[in-house]
Amino acid sequence: MAGHATTKVVGQTDAQATPRFAGLTTFARLPRLDQVPDYDVAIAGVPFDAGCTYRSGARFGPAHIRQASRLLRPYHLGLGVAPFEANQVVDAGDLSANPFNIPQALEAVSQGAAQLIADGRRLVALGGDHTITLPLLRAVAQHHGPLAVLHFDSHLDTWGTYFGAEYTHGSPFRRASEEGLIDRNHSIHVGIHGSVYAESDLSEDTDLGFSLIPSEALEEGGVGPVVQRIRDRVGDQPLYISTDIDVIDVGMAPGTGTPEAGGLLTRELLLILRGLRGLQLAGADLVEVCPAYDHAEVTGIAAAHVVYEYLALMATEPRRLSNESLAGHQVQQ
Amino acid sequence: MAGHATTKVVGQTDAQATPRFAGLTTFARLPRLDQVPDYDVAIAGVPFDAGCTYRSGARFGPAHIRQASRLLRPYHLGLGVAPFEANQVVDAGDLSANPFNIPQALEAVSQGAAQLIADGRRLVALGGDHTITLPLLRAVAQHHGPLAVLHFDSHLDTWGTYFGAEYTHGSPFRRASEEGLIDRNHSIHVGIHGSVYAESDLSEDTDLGFSLIPSEALEEGGVGPVVQRIRDRVGDQPLYISTDIDVIDVGMAPGTGTPEAGGLLTRELLLILRGLRGLQLAGADLVEVCPAYDHAEVTGIAAAHVVYEYLALMATEPRRLSNESLAGHQVQQ
Amino acid sequence: MAGHATTKVVGQTDAQATPRFAGLTTFARLPRLDQVPDYDVAIAGVPFDAGCTYRSGARFGPAHIRQASRLLRPYHLGLGVAPFEANQVVDAGDLSANPFNIPQALEAVSQGAAQLIADGRRLVALGGDHTITLPLLRAVAQHHGPLAVLHFDSHLDTWGTYFGAEYTHGSPFRRASEEGLIDRNHSIHVGIHGSVYAESDLSEDTDLGFSLIPSEALEEGGVGPVVQRIRDRVGDQPLYISTDIDVIDVGMAPGTGTPEAGGLLTRELLLILRGLRGLQLAGADLVEVCPAYDHAEVTGIAAAHVVYEYLALMATEPRRLSNESLAGHQVQQ
Amino acid sequence: MAGHATTKVVGQTDAQATPRFAGLTTFARLPRLDQVPDYDVAIAGVPFDAGCTYRSGARFGPAHIRQASRLLRPYHLGLGVAPFEANQVVDAGDLSANPFNIPQALEAVSQGAAQLIADGRRLVALGGDHTITLPLLRAVAQHHGPLAVLHFDSHLDTWGTYFGAEYTHGSPFRRASEEGLIDRNHSIHVGIHGSVYAESDLSEDTDLGFSLIPSEALEEGGVGPVVQRIRDRVGDQPLYISTDIDVIDVGMAPGTGTPEAGGLLTRELLLILRGLRGLQLAGADLVEVCPAYDHAEVTGIAAAHVVYEYLALMATEPRRLSNESLAGHQVQQ
Amino acid sequence: MAGHATTKVVGQTDAQATPRFAGLTTFARLPRLDQVPDYDVAIAGVPFDAGCTYRSGARFGPAHIRQASRLLRPYHLGLGVAPFEANQVVDAGDLSANPFNIPQALEAVSQGAAQLIADGRRLVALGGDHTITLPLLRAVAQHHGPLAVLHFDSHLDTWGTYFGAEYTHGSPFRRASEEGLIDRNHSIHVGIHGSVYAESDLSEDTDLGFSLIPSEALEEGGVGPVVQRIRDRVGDQPLYISTDIDVIDVGMAPGTGTPEAGGLLTRELLLILRGLRGLQLAGADLVEVCPAYDHAEVTGIAAAHVVYEYLALMATEPRRLSNESLAGHQVQQ
Amino acid sequence: MAGHATTKVVGQTDAQATPRFAGLTTFARLPRLDQVPDYDVAIAGVPFDAGCTYRSGARFGPAHIRQASRLLRPYHLGLGVAPFEANQVVDAGDLSANPFNIPQALEAVSQGAAQLIADGRRLVALGGDHTITLPLLRAVAQHHGPLAVLHFDSHLDTWGTYFGAEYTHGSPFRRASEEGLIDRNHSIHVGIHGSVYAESDLSEDTDLGFSLIPSEALEEGGVGPVVQRIRDRVGDQPLYISTDIDVIDVGMAPGTGTPEAGGLLTRELLLILRGLRGLQLAGADLVEVCPAYDHAEVTGIAAAHVVYEYLALMATEPRRLSNESLAGHQVQQ
Repeated sequence: MAGHATTKVVGQTDAQATPRFAGLTTFARLPRLDQVPDYDVAIAGVPFDAGCTYRSGARFGPAHIRQASRLLRPYHLGLGVAPFEANQVVDAGDLSANPFNIPQALEAVSQGAAQLIADGRRLVALGGDHTITLPLLRAVAQHHGPLAVLHFDSHLDTWGTYFGAEYTHGSPFRRASEEGLIDRNHSIHVGIHGSVYAESDLSEDTDLGFSLIPSEALEEGGVGPVVQRIRDRVGDQPLYISTDIDVIDVGMAPGTGTPEAGGLLTRELLLILRGLRGLQLAGADLVEVCPAYDHAEVTGIAAAHVVYEYLALMATEPRRLSNESLAGHQVQQ
Repeated sequence: MAGHATTKVVGQTDAQATPRFAGLTTFARLPRLDQVPDYDVAIAGVPFDAGCTYRSGARFGPAHIRQASRLLRPYHLGLGVAPFEANQVVDAGDLSANPFNIPQALEAVSQGAAQLIADGRRLVALGGDHTITLPLLRAVAQHHGPLAVLHFDSHLDTWGTYFGAEYTHGSPFRRASEEGLIDRNHSIHVGIHGSVYAESDLSEDTDLGFSLIPSEALEEGGVGPVVQRIRDRVGDQPLYISTDIDVIDVGMAPGTGTPEAGGLLTRELLLILRGLRGLQLAGADLVEVCPAYDHAEVTGIAAAHVVYEYLALMATEPRRLSNESLAGHQVQQ
Repeated sequence: MAGHATTKVVGQTDAQATPRFAGLTTFARLPRLDQVPDYDVAIAGVPFDAGCTYRSGARFGPAHIRQASRLLRPYHLGLGVAPFEANQVVDAGDLSANPFNIPQALEAVSQGAAQLIADGRRLVALGGDHTITLPLLRAVAQHHGPLAVLHFDSHLDTWGTYFGAEYTHGSPFRRASEEGLIDRNHSIHVGIHGSVYAESDLSEDTDLGFSLIPSEALEEGGVGPVVQRIRDRVGDQPLYISTDIDVIDVGMAPGTGTPEAGGLLTRELLLILRGLRGLQLAGADLVEVCPAYDHAEVTGIAAAHVVYEYLALMATEPRRLSNESLAGHQVQQ
Repeated sequence: MAGHATTKVVGQTDAQATPRFAGLTTFARLPRLDQVPDYDVAIAGVPFDAGCTYRSGARFGPAHIRQASRLLRPYHLGLGVAPFEANQVVDAGDLSANPFNIPQALEAVSQGAAQLIADGRRLVALGGDHTITLPLLRAVAQHHGPLAVLHFDSHLDTWGTYFGAEYTHGSPFRRASEEGLIDRNHSIHVGIHGSVYAESDLSEDTDLGFSLIPSEALEEGGVGPVVQRIRDRVGDQPLYISTDIDVIDVGMAPGTGTPEAGGLLTRELLLILRGLRGLQLAGADLVEVCPAYDHAEVTGIAAAHVVYEYLALMATEPRRLSNESLAGHQVQQ
Repeated sequence: MAGHATTKVVGQTDAQATPRFAGLTTFARLPRLDQVPDYDVAIAGVPFDAGCTYRSGARFGPAHIRQASRLLRPYHLGLGVAPFEANQVVDAGDLSANPFNIPQALEAVSQGAAQLIADGRRLVALGGDHTITLPLLRAVAQHHGPLAVLHFDSHLDTWGTYFGAEYTHGSPFRRASEEGLIDRNHSIHVGIHGSVYAESDLSEDTDLGFSLIPSEALEEGGVGPVVQRIRDRVGDQPLYISTDIDVIDVGMAPGTGTPEAGGLLTRELLLILRGLRGLQLAGADLVEVCPAYDHAEVTGIAAAHVVYEYLALMATEPRRLSNESLAGHQVQQ
Repeated sequence: MAGHATTKVVGQTDAQATPRFAGLTTFARLPRLDQVPDYDVAIAGVPFDAGCTYRSGARFGPAHIRQASRLLRPYHLGLGVAPFEANQVVDAGDLSANPFNIPQALEAVSQGAAQLIADGRRLVALGGDHTITLPLLRAVAQHHGPLAVLHFDSHLDTWGTYFGAEYTHGSPFRRASEEGLIDRNHSIHVGIHGSVYAESDLSEDTDLGFSLIPSEALEEGGVGPVVQRIRDRVGDQPLYISTDIDVIDVGMAPGTGTPEAGGLLTRELLLILRGLRGLQLAGADLVEVCPAYDHAEVTGIAAAHVVYEYLALMATEPRRLSNESLAGHQVQQ
């Protein structure tokens, strides 16, 4: 599997030849998909926000995150890896989605994702609103079966229909669980802190297969215990990480659609991710960046750093995922 | 008709007793619909933007315009009228609309509007994206037959389907014309200035019943000739005015969804409206205010002033419209 | 007492029927005072800022907080309560205050507050600058006698006159203490972190009846010990909480009038409040939100969440306060 | 007279030695009052806004305008003068004013201004809200008798009391007229465009001695006729110009306290001023810049340019004003 | 010549298949240079701002303008042309330039431009600060000899050295004139409105070969006479247009480096350009967009529209320029 | 030594006589250098940013920080000192630097700094970009020999050349180490958290004499252990503190040039500094505040508070530094 990808990796545009503020925008100044013969990890935007219930505008998220990612450099100090050297990472552009028809959009995203992840390649998706995680999970689960989902968010996103719509940014994990895409013994929400509809939100959520670490946990014990609880829950299952940027306190990451106060610090989020080395990361997304509410790209920068953590984690694993490699996978800390 | 409304009018909250920045927000600090026994003109928000093709967020338009309207005072110098004294004007709150289902939303808006305009009452709607003008026209045309439409915009909005959607903010006037809601001999676009798809956009637009005054006309001859061309076109037909705030140059009114440079000055727009005294204004809307892109409420203030011009025009007419009164109506300048 | 209020509670506008961004703005989409037969807790704005010494503009605070509170939902996970179900909470609009005459304004606010809290009802006030806490304390202390004051702020606000003015946003607690409104054995500042005038500021403050927990305490031991120190200090006295939003670090809550760096995280503030369950909360305010300096409503959102914590605490207590109930009150943790 | 001031003029900091963005901030990088032996024209800030009825914050106006004036250069092309060479212009800092006591503040401003204009020197004041024009007129009229006032504004500012306060930013010209500071045959408002309270506002205004040119006049005939009407009205009386920055359309100058749409373009305002060459300018102010609502200093830049026009006009006149020189003054065009 | 380019033109990404907010960012969603076999017009960014004397940041201009150009559509109503159909227009990315060494940067830009314009192809450059116009003129003049330069700006940009630097954003046209790149009988500044250093600025400018139309001219006679004066001056010489975005009033286009009040309206600028049909446009640039000072992309949108006017003008001419075609060129109106 | 400075200290402008928002702007409303006979500590701006590799604009940093420092008061609660009473602190204005020639600028800054620190006076510099620390270190090391450098930053700033430039904001500490200005056994970076170029960045950095505390350390053990590690590393050497504001998480301090997520909280930074009492602080700077990206002055306020901590530390030491005093210095905790 990993052997597939033997061509020399093409990394970022050379910052000594082209200033980081110059050149057409791709994520982290990486090559586009069409500029390399093959790739291990694709980054793709999903500029879709028709499932949003409050502040719309996440359709501009992918372009914003890309622009905010220009400062990323080749080497990740914390994990001691070079994410763009360990894997051929490319910017695959955006998956097009019908802005007026949610089911059609879901289908298009699912198909687009499926193509990108053929043969054990991995996808990191940039939202877009949280609706898009459902078709992404469909594509990834098709390869790996039910996934352990690690979900960073201020909200549960296992709510039901809204104005009669089954598929919105409030329900991706309910639908995913109902569709069997989620491993109900190994999935977990982290950072929950907003108000909810009713006490039953929680019990239903548990039934759908999630355990929960609220943002208070960070206040109480810091990052370490949270990392351990996540590792314990996820185990050695194929893992999908979905981060809603609103898990970060709105005071630090204002550019989002359903903002809540009392969330995580960006640093906490990055360090939790950094603690997940050795888990088998099958795919990931970062959603709900809404640029119209951002200032000085701070939310975009936080988002770009989250994605960089994803890529650094992937740099610690084989270049291509396969069911065999996943089967034989041993979690190492 | 006008005789219906004989109760004493309740005007704005007294600014000598309550500072203009205080109190729950209604348009121009006017009474709510439930605070008066009857009304002549209702102002209602339509916080719907699911038909938007670019910068979404006009769903927050009504709340924003209301907040930006607090400074409006009782007397309109230019027309010499007291809009809140001549008519009982109320803030009727918002018409609720399904954010995920355009046809359902259209239906709800149409029904809500129909109720508000019963018995010759008039409605001024605050958008929301331009999709909402279609159901508003449906409601108004039901009373008055095909309407002369005066449409201020940088775009024609007579485009066809977009991603298979028939009803978006790019097509309300095509649909309205197809549905027979528009008087094809008396309708007109004013302020058009963006780029278009093809030369045929214009010829199709003409077929749908519109003549056109581009923004260049303001540069060439100023407000006077534009007013005259509008009056000549509209004649003495029942008139509906729909203003897309993007008719104003984006440099003066940044808070909008499909921004274009080269548009009208706010002052030009207000003065054109002021020149329409004596036309029989059956209804009006102001759409596409997108607060996330506004600064210091400047777009909201421009929008509030446009609505104030509508109300001032209505103050020069009978308090209630009826087919009889419309039939006997003579345009006076 | 609590028995007074037996009518069925009217909660928030149904978010399944009206999107949260729609409808005339009230705090948390709650009913207005005139829409219910009676209430337990009133939320009222006090749009007054003539006592401000630096960045003015808190007069727009109430409207801003209301708009930023639309996302609040019915159930508070952390405390396991439904604040709008446990009590009939209403938005009572704004208390009008003369913007040019501080003494007259104090009198008006005091009277307005007194009316709202008749018969054991409670008031949560939205400022406005901190000057307003004095008349609020006057009204509440009239019912309950000297109050234990829990004061979150970056400043002591026990300063003296400023430019000859006795009543400004820098002196409410000095005046309140002088007037006997404060229980000098049970009052406490939390989060203090700005520079001060002189060493004597502290000793005078102690004489006025306050103990002090600086923001450093959060760095050292986190939320838990701070909660304990507050509970120890406040005891089972009738409690008034006054939160100046500038207690939060200006980097997370920029929209305020006398900004300081080095403050609390919003999460810390919310969790401290959450730790106060069982104290007998007689009244509360949230002041110094200055929208002109806010961005993307982040300060307004933080403020709305603080108020939500107040309401959640009140949901754990009897619906109406009475001297008897207060006398027999036992603090439970 | 002009002979008084014979010392060599000290101009701006040399931009070839110190970049324009460097150095402690004074208006246009001019010397401070204490850096020169004498001066002809003083620029002084009046950071007072307690008379503001809506968006407060003009107290930060002077600092903002100074920072925004750094790009001003020595030579005025339109009038062909070197304003900082023709006169010794200095930045006199700010006149201190009690923020809580309007009468005291008026007195302090009046006295401070009187000192600065001794011996025929001139003052250009930077507000602050419009309340400050009254004490400035008191000081200037003490030297020159009733003044022809040229008032650029969207509002008349001849309103009465507000919440019992006689002296606010809505009434300076009523008070000034009542106090005999204004020459009732030679005063004029230019640019009026907001809504008003009642028809009687206008008739009372006329009685107070003002004629009026609304903003519509610019649309109709452009700058030329407006200049002529001003010159005809003002004649050869000693002239005081007071510009409320809100005379400019809020879309171009957002940073102000009582914003209105439909105002002048900045270019129109500058060109009108440029047309006033030869009038005898005895003093001037620029008020109502409210930085919290500004963006990228655009309002501050407009304000700085207005002040530059004042200074250019003063450069065409004798360096010192005296009653004799005024008496013998002949308007030249 | 024009015959060179016979391959079918590739236009914008299909907005019916990919929403305009989706996809990697290129100017107007045009193909990249590597996506077509050949091209007629290249758009290239020059993200260089080390020559800036005040607000730096134009280095981010190209990325910003591209993002702000997504709404541009295929057909230009005013000129009746389809700019992306008449010519193969491509986005050639950015020309890299050393941010610390102005002479090296000039050399690199000049060489990069020369490559792009080989064989009669044309270049439209997106700045970057105005320093870049010098190397662009060097490249274009190499093909066509001294150029008639049409320069829209608030400043003359014929100043001398600054802090010893010969090549800054204040001197490109002085250097260009000295180097013989400019046709001194056919060059002209339009829109000048800032203050200058000395009266001699103008006389020196005249000696360098420029005539001048100040922004006042627009106030006086509108667009028509300005167009005629430009046409008269330029004649049938090969024309280079350089637009500094600060020619637009800072109130409408805040995102720029040396902002001045009193400039052109965006509409005036666009209409002047539209009036130049038939002139032989050999190259063009749009400089000084400084995104950090922009809001809601309004300056970027104005810039994108200016570039669209350039491309529309080029669509009215032969696809490739050659000396022969230029020699035989007859200006047609 | 300390005996040199015996004149009575002039402190801040009296806030009871002049509101804090009034008066020409100096840091903390302190006297200018020319207003006192002598001084102990000079605050000087260095508005230079030509060494910046990404977001330029720190040239406006000094003016911004000064304006944001107006609220600072005389007494520092945490350290129990009165910084403006213990030392005569002055605002020395800005050191001028050539914006186009880095070597010349370095020389000018170095000379300017040398003058200000004559006779044991101390300098606190306000940047400007980080390039300026090199000439500042040159000046300070000339007096005290190699300095222990405590460097707060998200980046190492020991990188090599960039586009051939040796002296940029990425290399001051490499150059300083090479020039022998740094005590290689006692220097330390704190707060590092961005991605880097290569693993070798770290080893080279160690060779240049730095140890390192990453931002993660704050998450793990809080402020206390970090303070101890700094004290252990620095020992009793003459200390220079250089704080790059980007050490704070970009979500709390957006106004900076090379922003990174995951940094320190402002509170952590202030408390670490507060923990350094007793170290012998020979000089300090605060760099990389880039106002164009700031909002509501939050970054400026954080910067002003950092400087206030510097001044408070200096207030715990002798008023003048001398080699003798340094030699006999004993670190006390």
